[in-house]
Amino acid sequence: MDTMKPSRILLFTGNGKGKSTAAFGMLARALGHGMRARVIQFVKSDSSVGEQKFFSRFQEVEWQQFGLGFLPRDRESPEMESHRRAAREGLDAALAALASPEYDFVLLDEVCYALGEQLFDIEPLLDALRSVREGKIVVFTGRNAPASLVAAADTVTEMKLLKHAFEQGIAASAGVEN
Amino acid sequence: MDTMKPSRILLFTGNGKGKSTAAFGMLARALGHGMRARVIQFVKSDSSVGEQKFFSRFQEVEWQQFGLGFLPRDRESPEMESHRRAAREGLDAALAALASPEYDFVLLDEVCYALGEQLFDIEPLLDALRSVREGKIVVFTGRNAPASLVAAADTVTEMKLLKHAFEQGIAASAGVEN
Repeated sequence: MDTMKPSRILLFTGNGKGKSTAAFGMLARALGHGMRARVIQFVKSDSSVGEQKFFSRFQEVEWQQFGLGFLPRDRESPEMESHRRAAREGLDAALAALASPEYDFVLLDEVCYALGEQLFDIEPLLDALRSVREGKIVVFTGRNAPASLVAAADTVTEMKLLKHAFEQGIAASAGVEN
Repeated sequence: MDTMKPSRILLFTGNGKGKSTAAFGMLARALGHGMRARVIQFVKSDSSVGEQKFFSRFQEVEWQQFGLGFLPRDRESPEMESHRRAAREGLDAALAALASPEYDFVLLDEVCYALGEQLFDIEPLLDALRSVREGKIVVFTGRNAPASLVAAADTVTEMKLLKHAFEQGIAASAGVEN
């Protein structure tokens, strides 16, 4: 990939807080610059969270979830097939968004996690990245980013958990999900 | 500090991308939950960036910068005094916001950097944190977070730079500042 190509591919990974939140902050920035955005969430299925409530107010944002929530503890469970199917639909939507001139900003939230769980194959995604048009911003989030996605990204940040409220017995509350 | 107290103090530090952006994502979440927010930026002085343009649309957000931009290369320069003065004004605003029942969410952007550069003393801030009311969300960002601030926070994430577009010769562009 030509590193001088001005498209921006950013990746937020690691076990710490702030991966998706950083991506939502970038989305706010992009909207501030008048961009049109597509958000595709893998694995997640809860549409009541603050970020979706907030960004759904804007017609410049098209937000869609393709997840069924937590994966079954037993990854060999037949239930996994429905998770894989949902994720593959998310992949199709992602490929369409990456190719479409309609969106200036594409966020694939939790895509790294979905890839790490082998919910779908990474190759079509890498292919789509190679031909993404100039100026488009693409943001990936999720723990356990595959090396090939790290290689394809321009900027990669690892969010490292140094200290977490949950470890200290404080439950999640409105405004501070995940 | 009582760790069961349900106020939330979050800190994003480290040399990677996504510290302020994660905080802006949390701000979006907070607004999604109907919270009122105060944003105080230290050091930064550029109000043309996407996040400020975007969040300025919302009357639930009060946004203010107390910075003069980059510090002089020579930290002994007399010019430093004006940076210290600006930062101390930011501190006063921060203390007022932490004490005020008007704000449910207080973001002190780049406060760790300002503290690391000893633009003001940390003690008044730590005092204010001890008496912050329940349910208030407080977010700190900036590299080189002092240990006492890490100790005071409920959740701490270190953003680690794994790979950066700038290192590859790609300049910043609209939508992907800092």
